[in-house]
Amino acid sequence: MAASIARVAEPPRRIPLDRAAFRWAGVEARDYKSRAGDAPGMSWQALTRHTIGPPGAAFETRYFELEPGGYSSLEKHRHVHLVFAVRGRGRALVGDSVFDFEGLDAIYVPPLTPHRWMNAGEEPFGFLCTVDAERDRPQPLDEDELAALRANPATAPYAF
Amino acid sequence: MAASIARVAEPPRRIPLDRAAFRWAGVEARDYKSRAGDAPGMSWQALTRHTIGPPGAAFETRYFELEPGGYSSLEKHRHVHLVFAVRGRGRALVGDSVFDFEGLDAIYVPPLTPHRWMNAGEEPFGFLCTVDAERDRPQPLDEDELAALRANPATAPYAF
Repeated sequence: MAASIARVAEPPRRIPLDRAAFRWAGVEARDYKSRAGDAPGMSWQALTRHTIGPPGAAFETRYFELEPGGYSSLEKHRHVHLVFAVRGRGRALVGDSVFDFEGLDAIYVPPLTPHRWMNAGEEPFGFLCTVDAERDRPQPLDEDELAALRANPATAPYAF
Repeated sequence: MAASIARVAEPPRRIPLDRAAFRWAGVEARDYKSRAGDAPGMSWQALTRHTIGPPGAAFETRYFELEPGGYSSLEKHRHVHLVFAVRGRGRALVGDSVFDFEGLDAIYVPPLTPHRWMNAGEEPFGFLCTVDAERDRPQPLDEDELAALRANPATAPYAF
């Protein structure tokens, strides 16, 4: 686990949440990705990424926040997701399912399963997302995958 | 990452939280540990462990719940913790600090840092705790560590 060994541990600390701003102390909001995706389905809108930590682990926990109307890119990768809704109301396209979730409901995304996160409400939607520290890069869906999602009435609205 | 490869992925799923019972669907409450600790500091009381997942990852996310008066063992290990309070009010002894936390406040526990989790309120206290899937076993504190915590007025009440 090279990622763990290479990191330097920090002192114990409390990372308080400012509940009005919904921001953890010392955790910066960053762009979701460094650039917009060009491949079909890889567009995204109005979301930020906040990497909370921890140093010295084989995993990373991030907070993602989507403004009303916001959505992530429709992508897949080998690493799995375990996500907990912590602010507002969200919707997830995962494989051939669409799940609404809020209030600490969790969503599991298996390997190589197409998925997209969306804000389903009028307030910001935020979720905690933990992933392996060493992980593969997200990939666009292939044409067959996109076609299947577009042919399924449940997933079609989100397969743009 | 043998732990990742050995596991079988499951289908996508939503894991809803029953907010009245504060239980995730299909996630069993288990004993915190299989037996009480005999070494100094290793006693614990009134807490349960709920392993939420995910399969196929280099990490595990667990929910721990402590009844009023409950506490975990005072221990250390090489693997780090990143913990989020999600129910009630908690207190953490971490190294030579004592932190109160609640409402999605996070606590980081560095490698080999003595720590104990406690309920600081009159309601159940629960936190999400993510750890490396491959990790070392918790160890009792050595005599010098216990003596230092007992000599420090801030930590002494919790170094039993």
